[in-house]
Amino acid sequence: MQTAVLGMGSWGTALARVLANNGHQVNLWGRDQALVDYFNQTQVNAKYLNNCPLPQTVTAMTDMKQAVADSQMILIVVPTKAIRSVCDQLNQVLGQGDATQPLIVHATKGIEVGTHLRVSQMIKASLSVDTYRGLAVLSGPSHAEEVGQDMLTMVTIAAQNLETAQEVQAFFMNPYFRVYTNTDMLGVELGGALKNIIAITSGMIDGLGYGDNSRAALLTRGLAEITRLGVALGADPLTFMGLSGLGDLIVTATSQHSRNYRAGRLLGQGYSIEETRAKINMAIEGLNTCQAAFELAKDLEIEMPITQALYKLLYEGEDVQKLVYSLMTREGKSEAKIEDHLGDE
Amino acid sequence: MQTAVLGMGSWGTALARVLANNGHQVNLWGRDQALVDYFNQTQVNAKYLNNCPLPQTVTAMTDMKQAVADSQMILIVVPTKAIRSVCDQLNQVLGQGDATQPLIVHATKGIEVGTHLRVSQMIKASLSVDTYRGLAVLSGPSHAEEVGQDMLTMVTIAAQNLETAQEVQAFFMNPYFRVYTNTDMLGVELGGALKNIIAITSGMIDGLGYGDNSRAALLTRGLAEITRLGVALGADPLTFMGLSGLGDLIVTATSQHSRNYRAGRLLGQGYSIEETRAKINMAIEGLNTCQAAFELAKDLEIEMPITQALYKLLYEGEDVQKLVYSLMTREGKSEAKIEDHLGDE
Repeated sequence: MQTAVLGMGSWGTALARVLANNGHQVNLWGRDQALVDYFNQTQVNAKYLNNCPLPQTVTAMTDMKQAVADSQMILIVVPTKAIRSVCDQLNQVLGQGDATQPLIVHATKGIEVGTHLRVSQMIKASLSVDTYRGLAVLSGPSHAEEVGQDMLTMVTIAAQNLETAQEVQAFFMNPYFRVYTNTDMLGVELGGALKNIIAITSGMIDGLGYGDNSRAALLTRGLAEITRLGVALGADPLTFMGLSGLGDLIVTATSQHSRNYRAGRLLGQGYSIEETRAKINMAIEGLNTCQAAFELAKDLEIEMPITQALYKLLYEGEDVQKLVYSLMTREGKSEAKIEDHLGDE
Repeated sequence: MQTAVLGMGSWGTALARVLANNGHQVNLWGRDQALVDYFNQTQVNAKYLNNCPLPQTVTAMTDMKQAVADSQMILIVVPTKAIRSVCDQLNQVLGQGDATQPLIVHATKGIEVGTHLRVSQMIKASLSVDTYRGLAVLSGPSHAEEVGQDMLTMVTIAAQNLETAQEVQAFFMNPYFRVYTNTDMLGVELGGALKNIIAITSGMIDGLGYGDNSRAALLTRGLAEITRLGVALGADPLTFMGLSGLGDLIVTATSQHSRNYRAGRLLGQGYSIEETRAKINMAIEGLNTCQAAFELAKDLEIEMPITQALYKLLYEGEDVQKLVYSLMTREGKSEAKIEDHLGDE
């Protein structure tokens, strides 16, 4: 079938490859004409997913109208802060041609600063409701570099109703890319976004020279903390124990492939936020998500000590070494109290 | 205070160091006279925790009566299969001297083959009830090598009642060794033991050349699977989300320090079980725990696909490559169904 992938980052490119391997025609949309031209000459995204040639059935382009024409499914994979502008462009070209109402899927892991909207909410707010026939999110533990090498990967597709999730599942499922459906879209989106905060802090722990014992304790508390916020926002706590929660947390917080983890490690090693952003040179979603989560936690009166510590580092200039040590040793005497954050030493 | 540590492996030695650093006198009991003698000359356990000198307040000995004399707290840290014989010896010497009733603590992560007893149950079955005044377990994400270097570590002490847990906590707690109490002894012991099954399988995944995406999916399902068994046996599911469950799973299943993980990697690389045991040359608790968990799951009619796959490899000679591939791709279409194991493709 005809599909479109909007976003030529590493993840968009890897997912375009999955779709093409499954026999679909893929229009891969990006803004960078040089990257698009080079891709069409070589079938390789030299900037973001090198050493990974895509099938001839993937064509890159910068014209969005052309990209989405006749698409049965449109996958949006751009940084959270670019979602609005991409959706505005999409809204102008959807429904202008024939009457095909595509499925819209996104694979972006963030929360909008200011509005605190999830990505699916941003999309709903931007697109005319009669131009598409269903909205889903793809999430889970999935380094693009591994998916690009056909390495076995398991992800979650969530939508408000099971039928939409199953329709999207059929586009992506294959022997190495295993897709499971879920109807807790809220929990899946929140898990994917919030885990980046914990991944950054995990990198900081490593950058500061703490060991595996500390990191495991941090991840344990981190999952409890983001689950707490998710549940307060209406998500199913079990979703946070699944692929899009715990699974994605493990893969993001323990691997060099993850830019959020790498950013945290640089911060732990003493680099400034500006230096870190410059070195990573890709969207570090967790930095913005931290701000959104900090504000949400404040509004909802939920204690999120890891998020609060990272916020203080990022926005109040606190010293990383002191901050992490006090974070790691502040807790109470009973394990139940750690989770409720009622105890103190 | 006077304390005894029974077991001169890496973990017993590291915990003896924590106790000594906290100002306690420690008698470190082991069976190997040469190791004991060398330790008393150098304060180093050359065989199991090299490069880590212990304070002069730790004395090694092979005489158990001498080791436990006047001890306020006795910590047992020997492989599961040695628990019975150590407790039998202990039973003969406890209560023979003055009337001190010590606390008994264990830090052994296993389930007895055949009886399916947890370690605390084995201890209760072996020791006369009037010879000690409380029983607790110490567990959590804690590589001995890191604890031996004073690296920040967080563990759980669980006992049937909070007072006992708090008494034990006071022996171990210090600025780098953070101890949290818990009263779900069942859940803490099961989490520590069962996670080794998942750690072995995680090593197999890596040994076979799968990537981080697969491993994260395996760990996600592994935690769900061992939680299922734990809950069926009466544990609190939240315990499996804590330090002794998720925390220990992460540290054991993702780190070269873990012998269970390393054993799994060798199995994945094609070494036989005998070759693997010879190369590791320390107790690989997960191999025996797998058998016990397999039998428990059968009795209780709980689906544990990872445990069942490892059992087939270990005891039915199935091919590791086929087994892992079929394990990783067998599941159903919906994420909830994965957890219930009702679905099929």
